[in-house]
Amino acid sequence: LEVTLEHIIQAKARLNDIAIRTPLLESPWINQHVQARVLFKAEVLQHTGSFKFRGAYNALSALEPQVRKNGVVAYSSGNHAQAVARVAQLFGCPAWIVMPSDAPKTKIEGTRFYGAEVILYNRDTENRDEIAMAIAHEKNAALIPPFDHPHVIAGQGTVGLEIVEQLQEKANQPDLVLIPCSGGGLSAGCATAIKSHFPATHIYSVEPEGYDDTALSLRLKSRTQVTPSQKTICDALMLTIPGQLTFSINQSLLSGGLSTSDEVVYQAMRLLFEKLKLVVEPGGAVGLATLLSGAVEVAGKTVVIVLSGGNVDDACFSHMLEKTQSSQ
Amino acid sequence: LEVTLEHIIQAKARLNDIAIRTPLLESPWINQHVQARVLFKAEVLQHTGSFKFRGAYNALSALEPQVRKNGVVAYSSGNHAQAVARVAQLFGCPAWIVMPSDAPKTKIEGTRFYGAEVILYNRDTENRDEIAMAIAHEKNAALIPPFDHPHVIAGQGTVGLEIVEQLQEKANQPDLVLIPCSGGGLSAGCATAIKSHFPATHIYSVEPEGYDDTALSLRLKSRTQVTPSQKTICDALMLTIPGQLTFSINQSLLSGGLSTSDEVVYQAMRLLFEKLKLVVEPGGAVGLATLLSGAVEVAGKTVVIVLSGGNVDDACFSHMLEKTQSSQ
Repeated sequence: LEVTLEHIIQAKARLNDIAIRTPLLESPWINQHVQARVLFKAEVLQHTGSFKFRGAYNALSALEPQVRKNGVVAYSSGNHAQAVARVAQLFGCPAWIVMPSDAPKTKIEGTRFYGAEVILYNRDTENRDEIAMAIAHEKNAALIPPFDHPHVIAGQGTVGLEIVEQLQEKANQPDLVLIPCSGGGLSAGCATAIKSHFPATHIYSVEPEGYDDTALSLRLKSRTQVTPSQKTICDALMLTIPGQLTFSINQSLLSGGLSTSDEVVYQAMRLLFEKLKLVVEPGGAVGLATLLSGAVEVAGKTVVIVLSGGNVDDACFSHMLEKTQSSQ
Repeated sequence: LEVTLEHIIQAKARLNDIAIRTPLLESPWINQHVQARVLFKAEVLQHTGSFKFRGAYNALSALEPQVRKNGVVAYSSGNHAQAVARVAQLFGCPAWIVMPSDAPKTKIEGTRFYGAEVILYNRDTENRDEIAMAIAHEKNAALIPPFDHPHVIAGQGTVGLEIVEQLQEKANQPDLVLIPCSGGGLSAGCATAIKSHFPATHIYSVEPEGYDDTALSLRLKSRTQVTPSQKTICDALMLTIPGQLTFSINQSLLSGGLSTSDEVVYQAMRLLFEKLKLVVEPGGAVGLATLLSGAVEVAGKTVVIVLSGGNVDDACFSHMLEKTQSSQ
């Protein structure tokens, strides 16, 4: 196996005192509403506002110092971008980040704030891999892939390892874990950690409707590309084909893939605002959205939901508040 | 002394595994903006959305079971209300809560959700103490005061004790601590814990402009009532005279009192939304507001700010997003 529990334990040692051990939170209101015990892993509180800090830090730590000093390159819709920029800043090396021009402003400006040079591209007409490769070649810099890399997956897996520890402290174990999924790095890493300790737990990836390539690929038992007919508000989850390494792990460990509509994602964001006092971006709220939509049977169960990121523009957040009804 | 470090340590033992050990968070953007290291104690993530859960739990724990079973009464603008309601629910005893009719809907509905009976009164024309006393007498129930009680203060002091521990883990100590202040229970408890460990740290209460009775009383060295000429958005901090016990503690431990305008409170709420992904109510954001207004010199210092609560209506939050400018 290219990513094992041992790799995740090593990543955790590297991240010790550097990443935030984010809390596992719950709301009596949400528990009562869905008739289950739901525990939320609040990665919105992680440095740079998403879990991506973990994988980026683990990957940059693993580079030889003389390689790292030349700098790093990444392509990302925004959360991996900010994470790599921040980690490069911590290591004192330059970073070039390739981002779609329609990424949320907060993500683009966040990446610049951490000192990286941002290269914008058109999501519909240009190929981000090629642009990033060209920069890596020109600058002799290391490419830090957003998900399909063992160090990145192991870093994201520390989210899962913390969930295990936090549940053990509560003398509890989960029946179900729901993990937002784009390339699949977070689910692959978390599943590796969680299934090592709780083999009976069912883990599902969650994607936006139309971008459910991982769900489809798991059903077809083969990496399959989807062709979405419309956009989604979940800007962080717009990939249309799973990663190779991530899919091989997810295929062996996940119980399946779920998907959810933008409409319900807004409702989930509102509940997280009202009941948990958390700002969660659309892609970070898909796990709760699947519960609200009734896509999965949870009555009486213990469910863990990863809130993967909170980098949302104020226009989107205001729109959500306006569009959805208060639970009160 | 009526509240000592020992009492707070006892409260912490009672709250162990019951209250959330809320994280101490920071934002590189905010640090750079104010040229200081600012650590935020995120009590918005506490059960019921504010620090008040701690004092309520400690106070109800200390009641004799045969007294507690008759039920409890409290008066509160909303955060203590929800806290007492929830704790009574955990102990399985009835609760009657006297609340102002103009309290945020989220606080009134939250209190009802936790199973308490809510008695609304008019903040301008009725006396909440009298209403609460009458109910306590009729029901033979115990009154749980919002701040002026040693068990309540000791419970709130666990916020301060956690701050001490979390700073010791970072091998750091604060130059300055800023604490939202209404009746003064949170500042009295936190100051007791923090000054025991860091005697050189300066601790300030923070109030909304016009409601700065603690600041004025500290200056005059005597409990003094203020007569506000206008309302404030900080619904949790609208008291106009300090508590007796709380003031005696605050007078001996605080370096002074600060105040801030609603305008800057909105800006603070936005930064906490953008940079920390936290939903903070107006009264919870006054600490950061004083930094933004430049009311206190912090360059190069380590500052701890308590974010005391997050129970804000969506209308207020939307208004804040609309009214303030993005930092991006």
